[in-house]
Amino acid sequence: MEPNPLKLNLTDALEAIRRGEFSRFELTRACLRQIEQLNPQINAFALLSAPGPEEIPSHGPLAGIPIAVKDLIDVAGLPTAAGSPHFFGQQPASKDALVVEKLKAAGAIILGKTNTHEIALGVTGINPHTGAVRNPHNPNHISGGSSSGSAAAVAAGMCLAALGTDTGGSTRIPAALCGVVGLKPTFGRVSTRGVLPLSWNLDHVGLLTRSVRDAALLLGIIAGYDPRDPASVNQQTDDYLSEIESGVRGWNIALAVGEYIEQAEREVLQAVTHAVQSISEFGAQIHKVEIAILPAAAEANGRMVIADAAAVHRERLENHPDWFGADVLTRLQKGRSLSATDYALARRTQSEVRRYFDLFFEQYDLLVLPTTAVAAAPIEGLDSAAYAPQLTRFTGPFNLAGLPALSLPAGKTRSGLPIGLQLVGPAWGEARLLQAGWAFERALCKSNF
Amino acid sequence: MEPNPLKLNLTDALEAIRRGEFSRFELTRACLRQIEQLNPQINAFALLSAPGPEEIPSHGPLAGIPIAVKDLIDVAGLPTAAGSPHFFGQQPASKDALVVEKLKAAGAIILGKTNTHEIALGVTGINPHTGAVRNPHNPNHISGGSSSGSAAAVAAGMCLAALGTDTGGSTRIPAALCGVVGLKPTFGRVSTRGVLPLSWNLDHVGLLTRSVRDAALLLGIIAGYDPRDPASVNQQTDDYLSEIESGVRGWNIALAVGEYIEQAEREVLQAVTHAVQSISEFGAQIHKVEIAILPAAAEANGRMVIADAAAVHRERLENHPDWFGADVLTRLQKGRSLSATDYALARRTQSEVRRYFDLFFEQYDLLVLPTTAVAAAPIEGLDSAAYAPQLTRFTGPFNLAGLPALSLPAGKTRSGLPIGLQLVGPAWGEARLLQAGWAFERALCKSNF
Repeated sequence: MEPNPLKLNLTDALEAIRRGEFSRFELTRACLRQIEQLNPQINAFALLSAPGPEEIPSHGPLAGIPIAVKDLIDVAGLPTAAGSPHFFGQQPASKDALVVEKLKAAGAIILGKTNTHEIALGVTGINPHTGAVRNPHNPNHISGGSSSGSAAAVAAGMCLAALGTDTGGSTRIPAALCGVVGLKPTFGRVSTRGVLPLSWNLDHVGLLTRSVRDAALLLGIIAGYDPRDPASVNQQTDDYLSEIESGVRGWNIALAVGEYIEQAEREVLQAVTHAVQSISEFGAQIHKVEIAILPAAAEANGRMVIADAAAVHRERLENHPDWFGADVLTRLQKGRSLSATDYALARRTQSEVRRYFDLFFEQYDLLVLPTTAVAAAPIEGLDSAAYAPQLTRFTGPFNLAGLPALSLPAGKTRSGLPIGLQLVGPAWGEARLLQAGWAFERALCKSNF
Repeated sequence: MEPNPLKLNLTDALEAIRRGEFSRFELTRACLRQIEQLNPQINAFALLSAPGPEEIPSHGPLAGIPIAVKDLIDVAGLPTAAGSPHFFGQQPASKDALVVEKLKAAGAIILGKTNTHEIALGVTGINPHTGAVRNPHNPNHISGGSSSGSAAAVAAGMCLAALGTDTGGSTRIPAALCGVVGLKPTFGRVSTRGVLPLSWNLDHVGLLTRSVRDAALLLGIIAGYDPRDPASVNQQTDDYLSEIESGVRGWNIALAVGEYIEQAEREVLQAVTHAVQSISEFGAQIHKVEIAILPAAAEANGRMVIADAAAVHRERLENHPDWFGADVLTRLQKGRSLSATDYALARRTQSEVRRYFDLFFEQYDLLVLPTTAVAAAPIEGLDSAAYAPQLTRFTGPFNLAGLPALSLPAGKTRSGLPIGLQLVGPAWGEARLLQAGWAFERALCKSNF
């Protein structure tokens, strides 16, 4: 039987291979066919590194699973272009990023590199150098970003999972807009060594998958302390799978409400309300909570991202500003124009936001809110300066806070575009966050695959 | 018997009171006599709050112990002037800082507020508004700062211990220059709530005492998580006294060497060498280690302090810059002129320095280096812009790293000025740091009191 990657998640694929329903090579070949057929339109992949039949690993927990990697993350032998002329034509990476090394050691196949918003500094996925990544649910619409190609590839059945990054929502936003699962772990949980930085203080490696369980499986493989990444934290990892089906009975779940939330599109709010109603039937207590600190947190995250990005890219910004696309250059220049006082105040807000949520999660087990305020906009004529803040307003606060956050599909708009539901947990609480995600997935009865 | 505060540490005083050698009130009265006699010259106290006999607590682990508080830390009923006209004439503080509340609850007597370098942004203790604090070992020389009055008061027998703050060395430096013990705990160990901030990321409350054991006793009283201080960390405290006499047999002690260290004055280096030789006879292994990251760490700390200070004091700097003294205004203006890129790069250095020492303390139990590169300079004609970096070059790195650091007296120069030895331990390792400090104190056989 030929596998249909559009109907298959990673966990099921492993099981089907084990049962001999199809071979590992057939799985990769099916993904490559999907790429061949859809990538010319969707533009998810920047570069393919398709293995031959003899190169398919047969051992390890991910043996033969095709995974795509955002083109910000080093894969040995492939160039890392970050969607920017500043990196075009450079030598291939000599080493794998640690996350890629871990995936390969688990038997995964790195199928190729995916397109990104230039240097990951933007959330639409419209890249003037490599073209827009298009939404598999409607190719006239954006995919979201910056991990645009990774989300679109997973949504389009071009691979079973993908690596992204997330500095202000860059994994969760395209996950929401493309209708897949996106996980941003706790800051410091997954090594960023070998990943082109955007902000040393807000960058996370993220996962894009087709089910919450798949995200749990992959997190168990890539998580862990890396003494060679200064941002990595020496915190024990957990078994993210063993309790995942335990449900949310008796949980105290906070539903974010108030003016800041209610500026989201009506269909988005309805989807979140529906999800929360469904989960309450699973025995969770729902509490409506206004989180007054969210606007300040989103603002501080946005400010810190552009300030850090201007610092990371200071030489490129100094030497060849014109090589950057217009939107990214504007953000970098704005970051460069900020003062140390601006930065210090954003950092103070960061401390306050972290403490706010320390105390918040003494009271609640989980926070629920939309991933984005709006669904995917049409590419044509998009005013990204006005639109982008509608994508980051609910995601950025959790980069600043460093908290684990999960986006999962929660239905579609009447025009057929996916809506993302965001779940947020306490620091290092990925196991329970994924447990909640699994319960929501069941409650919504809407596995897209 | 009348107590002689010049010959008495806190631990011995408690014991003498317990044995009935003198009363609690006699102890306070003896300190007040010392103040009366020496403060006109030394200028340690800004304000006295001497209790009457009926106000002396008779219960608690510090019952009746006279303690002085840096005038940056709120004491209910007393104004907090921070050595700056910006705060002169303000209303008294309505509440105690949490550290003061804890000391009072333990029975301590708050004897008064001590002079500080203006807003704690400087390390000489020369304050154009309140006058220089003078060194009890030679009143023509500086006391060091910014916790100038706290160190001088302890050295001059005006109190048995004092609270300071430390953002770049402000507790350890005056401790070294005045010949007392100065402890800066791990960042986040002691609440800074109710303390006028200088940097939200580098401020620590510090202790000035006359013995290492006294510092351990006081740390046990003031340490602990404070959810209302965003910088406070929820980390278990230890019993800092129970193992303090356990010695350092078998310890691997790193002695900092190399060009950056050897620019210290010869007499300072000789004192450190002598201390290390003495401790090696107690069974410790000494390893000479060059810590290449120190200069970058000191520079980044200096940069972050002035940037954060300019943010904290932005309104005062905007509205009445001329109210600041010349040296402090220059530093604040320099902090204000820094860019967000400058800040982001300093913060990146901070992450790298923290990781460097994480790994360092997997290999070594303790780091030893001078507290300051030079002894106390004469007040007259001091070029503080050239001199101050000689005071902070060895202390600032451990504010950036957030590591616990202890300065203890290690002899004197030929001209009779104290030299400080600095011991640094891993994060949250105050118990073992104090254990090492106790052993050094014994090894040096030079209790100054």
